[in-house]
Amino acid sequence: MPSPPFITFEGLDNSGKTTQMSRIVAWLRERGTDVVATREPGGSPQAEQLRHLLVSPSQGWHPLSALLLFSAARNEHLHAVIKPALEKGAWVLCDRFIDSTYAYQGAGEGIAKAPIDAVSQAVVGTMMPTRTFIFDMPAEHVFSRPQEKAEARYETAKDLSFFQRVREGLLARAAQDKQRCVIIDATQPIDTITQDIQTSLKDYLS
Amino acid sequence: MPSPPFITFEGLDNSGKTTQMSRIVAWLRERGTDVVATREPGGSPQAEQLRHLLVSPSQGWHPLSALLLFSAARNEHLHAVIKPALEKGAWVLCDRFIDSTYAYQGAGEGIAKAPIDAVSQAVVGTMMPTRTFIFDMPAEHVFSRPQEKAEARYETAKDLSFFQRVREGLLARAAQDKQRCVIIDATQPIDTITQDIQTSLKDYLS
Repeated sequence: MPSPPFITFEGLDNSGKTTQMSRIVAWLRERGTDVVATREPGGSPQAEQLRHLLVSPSQGWHPLSALLLFSAARNEHLHAVIKPALEKGAWVLCDRFIDSTYAYQGAGEGIAKAPIDAVSQAVVGTMMPTRTFIFDMPAEHVFSRPQEKAEARYETAKDLSFFQRVREGLLARAAQDKQRCVIIDATQPIDTITQDIQTSLKDYLS
Repeated sequence: MPSPPFITFEGLDNSGKTTQMSRIVAWLRERGTDVVATREPGGSPQAEQLRHLLVSPSQGWHPLSALLLFSAARNEHLHAVIKPALEKGAWVLCDRFIDSTYAYQGAGEGIAKAPIDAVSQAVVGTMMPTRTFIFDMPAEHVFSRPQEKAEARYETAKDLSFFQRVREGLLARAAQDKQRCVIIDATQPIDTITQDIQTSLKDYLS
């Protein structure tokens, strides 16, 4: 039996990916699909402890430390949640995964590709997502929506040029792996985006 | 001006390395040497937060996660403490460093050399110790001294064969880098060990 779909949602903060993932989870469950919905950083008790360390604005981790902490959280999340879910036959939908690391720690913070590749290979290995929706929008939109989240670390601590680099980093990931990655125009109406994602997932359902 | 000595003390728990390091720090300070004494995991406020996560017996991190967390702590420690101290001309003496990672996470926990090399290269790079004292003793001695430390994670959670592998891992590190590493017979009388270390450091002092 082939492994069930492992689908990730990537994009800048405020791109609407979390809302869209919730809609897709509900839609899949209505169809009777067994779905595990999770997020990074976090998603398992130990990874959530690391999330807490990472999202606190007071922390100020060195970029390489942040890479290692995000990667440790991902490793826990993979072993505690993602692998067990896929092995029992559930779909896994995850809000952020490996592409965020390349975009934020790599393109955004300037960590070289070699250490990111090395750590990613050790942690993710062959457990790559089967499909990734990359929500694309102008970087200015990061600042244009209400700041409701207490965890809005990046929005407050980083400037526009940072998010422009992250956006470019995400698009570069999509360009490198066109079979896995689907770019979503996040400026479209919310229902249009949902329909686009549903259409993209039809091949898994048929 | 050449960089001042960066000296690390490695060995199994209960090998006496911490006591010996304290003695050497006092001896150097009596001679008027500017010494920064530190330890891993920890040594800086953020690294100590990670130490707290790592030493709690309830945590049960996956070995690869532990490697990444120890390495993140080391990165913070290097940037916050070790590099600034060496740059101002102080000697740095550190209780555990990179060899512990190869011995505990590598030889002990079974993580392959490739990911450890990759992470170590990213974090430590050229900041290798100039001298390392490796305290060697039969692994059985780990269990033979009073359990005074609340943080005695490894002593309680691991069996003899684990510490035998760690010991072999430390000796292998010493064999690979004979110029840097000095093996200390930790079963000798405490004053003999102190004198041996003082003799080894004489070339830095002259």
